[in-house]
Amino acid sequence: MTDPPEPGRRAGRASRPDGRRSGRRGGDSGTREAILAAARARFGDLGYDRATIRDIAADAGVDPALVHHFYGKKESLFVAAMRLPVNPLEILDAALAPGARDESRGLGEHLLRIVLGVWDVAEMRATFLGMLRSATTSEQAAAMLREFATGTILSRIAGLAQESAPDGAADAEYRAALVASQVLGLALTRYVLEIDALKQVSADDLAAAIGPTLDRYLSGELR
Amino acid sequence: MTDPPEPGRRAGRASRPDGRRSGRRGGDSGTREAILAAARARFGDLGYDRATIRDIAADAGVDPALVHHFYGKKESLFVAAMRLPVNPLEILDAALAPGARDESRGLGEHLLRIVLGVWDVAEMRATFLGMLRSATTSEQAAAMLREFATGTILSRIAGLAQESAPDGAADAEYRAALVASQVLGLALTRYVLEIDALKQVSADDLAAAIGPTLDRYLSGELR
Repeated sequence: MTDPPEPGRRAGRASRPDGRRSGRRGGDSGTREAILAAARARFGDLGYDRATIRDIAADAGVDPALVHHFYGKKESLFVAAMRLPVNPLEILDAALAPGARDESRGLGEHLLRIVLGVWDVAEMRATFLGMLRSATTSEQAAAMLREFATGTILSRIAGLAQESAPDGAADAEYRAALVASQVLGLALTRYVLEIDALKQVSADDLAAAIGPTLDRYLSGELR
Repeated sequence: MTDPPEPGRRAGRASRPDGRRSGRRGGDSGTREAILAAARARFGDLGYDRATIRDIAADAGVDPALVHHFYGKKESLFVAAMRLPVNPLEILDAALAPGARDESRGLGEHLLRIVLGVWDVAEMRATFLGMLRSATTSEQAAAMLREFATGTILSRIAGLAQESAPDGAADAEYRAALVASQVLGLALTRYVLEIDALKQVSADDLAAAIGPTLDRYLSGELR
């Protein structure tokens, strides 16, 4: 795979300390690493919302256009900087794409089949453990993850609720948060606590059992 | 409140290192601390299931009857040793006592109102953070918490499912684990990640919204 032509790169902190000009491939990977390191520092210090691509680029000594060129939007830069084994937003977007759902299944079951399918093969236990460890050890890390989840994943789920709930936009964020409470609780009990009765069940059976919960949170009566 | 007469205490590691006989009150609290320290060590090393009151008593240099006298059953000793601000089993047992439920509410809503009522006032954020931090940092701690939760809380919930589910005993443990996935996910998102949309809602509204989920997991159709 060849990259498209690069926008200009600024001289700066990303240049090699020994002053040698590196070859294109080595230079790319050095620049990418500098961007990711700057991103981790900025996201960690300021949280997801307040960190900007402009500042991250300045810290890495490159042009903001180069950051966009390598990593696209802020949300994908975050996923790369946190070294998530999969991009949750790409998975969610693919799951919600027109025609992605077998109409015999409810939306909740469909989403859970996809999420569990990815989690079961990816190193989700390690990733989920790492994120929870950060969130439980540092208030700052918890805030960063909350902002990322709220601004990206939950806002897409809220969009779904908005389309389908009887009261529309009014409580879309609340509905999305209820969905998160069930989905994250499933990750916690199946992958971290490893409760036997949940570990032994197939992803498809779990999706069928829990799917209607998500459907009700998204579009059903809440009281 | 005066304690009932004590069973005999063995001489042993719990006696004061300076050899002085301490007064009854000081002696009690020293012995209690020795028992709790021995319990924490045994539970940590062996997990909840394999740690025995007999071994904990031996480590603390006291008679097993004294451990029972101070702490009752193994499950209450665990709660005391882990310094939980509330005893989840007492709360659950009280919630399930005959007449405890207002019959206008479903069982799931009733349980959630009680659980959220306790969590909202107790230092649940600190406690839940501490437990999650242990579970995500140490495989051993995760196993210990899983065994405790499975052997005590989940087995009581499984008992409920057994009474009410259409297929009775067959999948009671699975049903209880589904309940745990939602309840722990709510604790994670409301108290640890502190997602705004969940923090702002009253315990009663949350219980009404999530209660039907627990009812379905306990006794409804799962697919």
